[in-house]
Amino acid sequence: MSQLQRIAIAPSQLQQGQIALTKEQQHYLTRVLRLREGDRFIAMDGKGKWWLTQLAGEQGQVLEPLVVETELPVAVTLLIALPKGNGFDEVVRCCTELGVTTIAPVLSDRTLLQPSPQKLERWRRIAAEAAEQSERAFVPTILEPVAFSSSLKLTSSQKYICEARGNFPHLKDCLPQPIDKEIIIATGPEGGWTQLEVDNAIASGFQAVSLGRRILRAVTAPIVALSLVSAACEV
Amino acid sequence: MSQLQRIAIAPSQLQQGQIALTKEQQHYLTRVLRLREGDRFIAMDGKGKWWLTQLAGEQGQVLEPLVVETELPVAVTLLIALPKGNGFDEVVRCCTELGVTTIAPVLSDRTLLQPSPQKLERWRRIAAEAAEQSERAFVPTILEPVAFSSSLKLTSSQKYICEARGNFPHLKDCLPQPIDKEIIIATGPEGGWTQLEVDNAIASGFQAVSLGRRILRAVTAPIVALSLVSAACEV
Repeated sequence: MSQLQRIAIAPSQLQQGQIALTKEQQHYLTRVLRLREGDRFIAMDGKGKWWLTQLAGEQGQVLEPLVVETELPVAVTLLIALPKGNGFDEVVRCCTELGVTTIAPVLSDRTLLQPSPQKLERWRRIAAEAAEQSERAFVPTILEPVAFSSSLKLTSSQKYICEARGNFPHLKDCLPQPIDKEIIIATGPEGGWTQLEVDNAIASGFQAVSLGRRILRAVTAPIVALSLVSAACEV
Repeated sequence: MSQLQRIAIAPSQLQQGQIALTKEQQHYLTRVLRLREGDRFIAMDGKGKWWLTQLAGEQGQVLEPLVVETELPVAVTLLIALPKGNGFDEVVRCCTELGVTTIAPVLSDRTLLQPSPQKLERWRRIAAEAAEQSERAFVPTILEPVAFSSSLKLTSSQKYICEARGNFPHLKDCLPQPIDKEIIIATGPEGGWTQLEVDNAIASGFQAVSLGRRILRAVTAPIVALSLVSAACEV
């Protein structure tokens, strides 16, 4: 079971076996994922093509194409406000089964506790187990918990923040057809995001959306959001 | 928080404040739900209209129209093969949040244990709590566990059985637009349905569908199926 990290690239970035990495991709690979020169990762074009790739300066050196049948064709990142108790274990398990690429646990204004480093190890172990049981080709990446405000910097042309209160359109009506190569979705804590968090997210390019008329718990919302995204990009 | 049971009716069944109940509806109300003469229930037309109704012989006597904003416009029944351990608690909680009308726990060929009566009481308590927390108008009905073969008799023009193995179309591509007034979806146990169970379901009018290319656990599948149905009938 491969634990390789994944990035989504535009087809035009790949020329003659070399992937020209954008500044954001270089930052994500070396600063967020902490890959070093020569480390391997997977480049995916969001249309079902995958390449095993090696980091070489500002480039990715393609080593070989990969055949993948149980992975979603797009990279889905979930920013999930940490719920109380052990609820996050189940979120990691379900979202891994549903095909998530990256889970970023975030600390929000209403999140009470900074989790221990042991928790992060535990979540990564759960993700590895769930990936195997659900017959995925890859283990999703679980990032270190960061403040929600920092996670807003993650770039994608499709970014959504789910918010139960307020009269926002349903996520299902906002997803592009087809979904482009990467998508980011944020779901809130018990009690919801604060107004300031929603405003900041919108200012950072997130679209505020609803997951329906009922109030979902913090542990249910990411599973529902991912169910809709997975179904929308399943062919 | 009202614990009233619900049935879906065709608009033509309602005339001058009287609902002419079909034989199946009479059986469901009096045998499955065990309502008695004079007991109240809710009739819904699948298009957002709701009536508080009283059982009167082969008729339902309409008492008053209801205004409902947090309920799905259609009646969704989930037939869920009981998973191992306490996993069903979380299934009841999540499905209640997502708007399920009726949960029928079923015993399948690969379900090992008949649950104790205490479990049923516990699930009903969880459903009542979750309905309140998610701001629903009604508490879903949790039926007594029955053999899957018996549950196949439930009638609806839209019946689906989710099966991970085999090359079935995705549920999202099989749901009618719009979803008619009631829908039944069956999800399997750890290890999946047996071939005989799938064959029997198909012979009883169920359509076999997939929930995606990855293998979902028994506790994840009903949440995913219901997420898609809820989103599809949300306006």
